[in-house]
Amino acid sequence: MCAARTILLVTCHPEKRSLNGALAAHARATLERLGHVVTESDLYAMRWKAVVDAADFPDESAGARLHPGPASRRATAAGTLTADVAAEQAKILAADALIFQFPLWWFGLPAMLKGWFDRVFSNGFAYGLTDPATGRGLRYGAGRLAGKRALLSVTTGGLAPAFSARGVSGDLEDLLFPVTHGMLFYPGMAVLPTFAVYGANRLPDDAFAAACTAYAARLAGLFTDAPIPYRTQNGGDYDDDLCLKPGLGGGAAGLALHRRVA
Amino acid sequence: MCAARTILLVTCHPEKRSLNGALAAHARATLERLGHVVTESDLYAMRWKAVVDAADFPDESAGARLHPGPASRRATAAGTLTADVAAEQAKILAADALIFQFPLWWFGLPAMLKGWFDRVFSNGFAYGLTDPATGRGLRYGAGRLAGKRALLSVTTGGLAPAFSARGVSGDLEDLLFPVTHGMLFYPGMAVLPTFAVYGANRLPDDAFAAACTAYAARLAGLFTDAPIPYRTQNGGDYDDDLCLKPGLGGGAAGLALHRRVA
Repeated sequence: MCAARTILLVTCHPEKRSLNGALAAHARATLERLGHVVTESDLYAMRWKAVVDAADFPDESAGARLHPGPASRRATAAGTLTADVAAEQAKILAADALIFQFPLWWFGLPAMLKGWFDRVFSNGFAYGLTDPATGRGLRYGAGRLAGKRALLSVTTGGLAPAFSARGVSGDLEDLLFPVTHGMLFYPGMAVLPTFAVYGANRLPDDAFAAACTAYAARLAGLFTDAPIPYRTQNGGDYDDDLCLKPGLGGGAAGLALHRRVA
Repeated sequence: MCAARTILLVTCHPEKRSLNGALAAHARATLERLGHVVTESDLYAMRWKAVVDAADFPDESAGARLHPGPASRRATAAGTLTADVAAEQAKILAADALIFQFPLWWFGLPAMLKGWFDRVFSNGFAYGLTDPATGRGLRYGAGRLAGKRALLSVTTGGLAPAFSARGVSGDLEDLLFPVTHGMLFYPGMAVLPTFAVYGANRLPDDAFAAACTAYAARLAGLFTDAPIPYRTQNGGDYDDDLCLKPGLGGGAAGLALHRRVA
């Protein structure tokens, strides 16, 4: 039995009786068996509002031009974010780890889950923070969510080879880089390699059982497995223009430049 | 004066009086001056429904388990897609090129625009097609939207160096690969390099004027500029597992593997 932690499970699928629903239930049961506390945001069940609009910022002057970034900053600072967003932020702050369960739709997040990030990761909460000592932005490995872990659990219609390093769809970890690096590592979380179930539209029973076993192993390592070794912005690898310094990343190219090699 | 074409301009920003609104108006005026016909989908003005759910498939049995992919396939084949989706598909089919104007939010599409792809790019329309002669999937350079061109026009809060090849946020074209390659090239469109305006939150007037000039040049080349040279799935570069054949892509790594080098 490990030390009890709290895990926020964010799920996004329109049908509870789906592979995604089954994997979410499996995650909850596995984590609870390990002694953890699981909180959940089942976005479709919550009828999550996906889109950023003026209704998110009731304190802004009616009819004034809406600048979403500054409006978000003011609402975060004043504590006037809408109740649904504030509730999600509280759940995140109370969690030691976040797990996201979703189907890969058009090579990214379903719109509803993207809208969870667009709205919940407000200015002054997940971005827009500065280190008072250095004046440098707190992001990419530093920020409000530092110390927490994150894991994506995705299902894909396509088969594994298409998402491999030379697969036609692009390497899955590269396709998800805007999420793992841009949404999760940015505000400070340590992000684990993605867990994926491929060929989800025609998954035989034995493949489902194997996926559950593999997923349980990943869940058991949630707090001990090595995260993706993304380079921190302020750790010395990037110059003042936020470009990787000459001489670093030698053999790598593309998005892999932003991972340290052991 | 060039030959008149029809261009569908898809815009996604909650505020018309924004940089995105100004760039969309500039695009429309420029294209019309060139003799083209511009149709528009202003998603916020249309109150576009962002999320896929059971309401999208009224012909499915009430209470039955929802399989979004097969349900989408049946609705597309039967002509029972919802009116909003059918209208967008008709606009796409009538267009010679598609332009998308949006702010980069969390390194991707705003949720509403992602939901446009999730719903409009239905099964049997933008995916799920097979070449009857070979049995091979029609995708990545082939499909219903072959012959059309596409261009992303994005604004970013961050500055250009952060989105350059070695920039901390990741190369912009790599971040947008799931859109350009996964959503636009997949159903057959030829995708132009992305047009970007950086530092959008604090853009001086002279920088806006320069951006308009640069954008006008890109719009003038909409039908003549070289698209991103993505490799077609069925052009001989990929094996039967859809992996890039050995020996190809020699010097490249990461997502750049999927571009042919001259």
